[in-house]
Amino acid sequence: MIDDFDVVIAGTEPITDRVMERASRLKLISRVGIGLDSVDLLSAEKHGIQVSYTPDAPAPAVAELTVGLMLSLLRSIHLANTELHEGNWQRHFGRRIPEVTIGIIGVGRIGQRVLRRLSSFGSPRILVNDLRPDTKVVPELKLEWVDKEDIYRHADVISLHIPLTKYTKGLIGEKQLQLMKHDALLINTARGGLVNENDLAEVLNKGHLGGAAIDVFEQEPYMGPLADIQRCLLTAHMGSMSIDCRTRMEIEATEEAVRFLTGESLQGKVPANEYEVQRQGL
Amino acid sequence: MIDDFDVVIAGTEPITDRVMERASRLKLISRVGIGLDSVDLLSAEKHGIQVSYTPDAPAPAVAELTVGLMLSLLRSIHLANTELHEGNWQRHFGRRIPEVTIGIIGVGRIGQRVLRRLSSFGSPRILVNDLRPDTKVVPELKLEWVDKEDIYRHADVISLHIPLTKYTKGLIGEKQLQLMKHDALLINTARGGLVNENDLAEVLNKGHLGGAAIDVFEQEPYMGPLADIQRCLLTAHMGSMSIDCRTRMEIEATEEAVRFLTGESLQGKVPANEYEVQRQGL
Repeated sequence: MIDDFDVVIAGTEPITDRVMERASRLKLISRVGIGLDSVDLLSAEKHGIQVSYTPDAPAPAVAELTVGLMLSLLRSIHLANTELHEGNWQRHFGRRIPEVTIGIIGVGRIGQRVLRRLSSFGSPRILVNDLRPDTKVVPELKLEWVDKEDIYRHADVISLHIPLTKYTKGLIGEKQLQLMKHDALLINTARGGLVNENDLAEVLNKGHLGGAAIDVFEQEPYMGPLADIQRCLLTAHMGSMSIDCRTRMEIEATEEAVRFLTGESLQGKVPANEYEVQRQGL
Repeated sequence: MIDDFDVVIAGTEPITDRVMERASRLKLISRVGIGLDSVDLLSAEKHGIQVSYTPDAPAPAVAELTVGLMLSLLRSIHLANTELHEGNWQRHFGRRIPEVTIGIIGVGRIGQRVLRRLSSFGSPRILVNDLRPDTKVVPELKLEWVDKEDIYRHADVISLHIPLTKYTKGLIGEKQLQLMKHDALLINTARGGLVNENDLAEVLNKGHLGGAAIDVFEQEPYMGPLADIQRCLLTAHMGSMSIDCRTRMEIEATEEAVRFLTGESLQGKVPANEYEVQRQGL
């Protein structure tokens, strides 16, 4: 479809080497959003196609959805809602944010924003993990930098805020899920593929974990076994779907296309380290 | 059931004049929680029965549930969850807290805590109403003190944090609901009876309002028409149902009973103004 175009404003559709091979006029891919797992950066480089993205625009909306999912899981809002709509009155006990240990894997644009929003709820114990610990981040909260395994073992709520790469694909499988507390809550608003969905469904079906909230899936639209598990809260890749963030993302991606076509310098060029990640193999 | 007892540790069961007339030994009602609409304070006074309560204990848990419900409504978490469990993938657009106008009716123990938690989400426009405006409350947020009618007309999200009294019963009926914006969101985690449930169901069924989240009902367990409306998020009177707050409420109410029985002075006596409210008629 894009073999005739100079610029493509792209969602999360895969833009592979085969696509770029055929898109002989393509000179710019302007991604609406932050994830680059759908774009073969090395092929783009080889074909002389520039790639831009809008990494900051979706972050506030994803962070808010994450906190919303966290509160739903902690207080069983989703379960009570389903039950009451079925005529079944069941009062669920829950836990408050300052009473639990929160584990955040990935403390970048989104993870930091989640933490900042949690800061007004009191002082939970917070375990964090990232490639490069940054002890100055979110100074209003006391963060403990630990290994991922410590997060699996000790956190009551675990939320993922990392990109999908060769190193993170299938990060959370059966082994990691089994390390988690029996009533741990897992949240993925980052990328499908980070969590092995079938392993998660199996583990939940066996009664392990308190629940999970999954917004992103390996294959979307999602039609898998998690849909049969009531304590798995499901949303439809809606992290960036606030009107303001979505508008900002789409305007920014379009402005980048206009800049390119009018010969101005690009403002959202994907940095070299993202190419480096893919060079190591996606 | 309580005609043999000196002290009753009470939930939300109605303790009426008829009950107190028969409970000839009763000397203390120790309420687990904050609401006094279930206790006939004037009858208690007449019978020489003291009344204590635990007004602070539930507040943090109610505030957290309220923010959770707000985020669910704003991002349609509850709708997406129901749809995905039915095999229906639908991405909903939502709004973020700093993009909307929030109206809080009742800025006491709970309303203040809701506002404090919202402060880390950015700077929404916030309209507030209470009997006595307190301009020093929640200094981290800019609050606009307005009439209730201004809140109905201009807020995108309206949350109630007031007691149930003669003056507040049926506060939100058809007229008030019709004043609200076509996509307004209404939250009630305070007391059933503040919102006319049948009016709310009718108005929602006619397509007015974006949605509602109702945790408290005139008659509980609730089995009414709101259960048939998907965009009405329902929970089962779970405001105070966090393990820590519930424990604190029950321990405090029990300690008060022990203090009474061992001749120590009470710490949670219901203040005179609560009797005054009921003297004006409940």
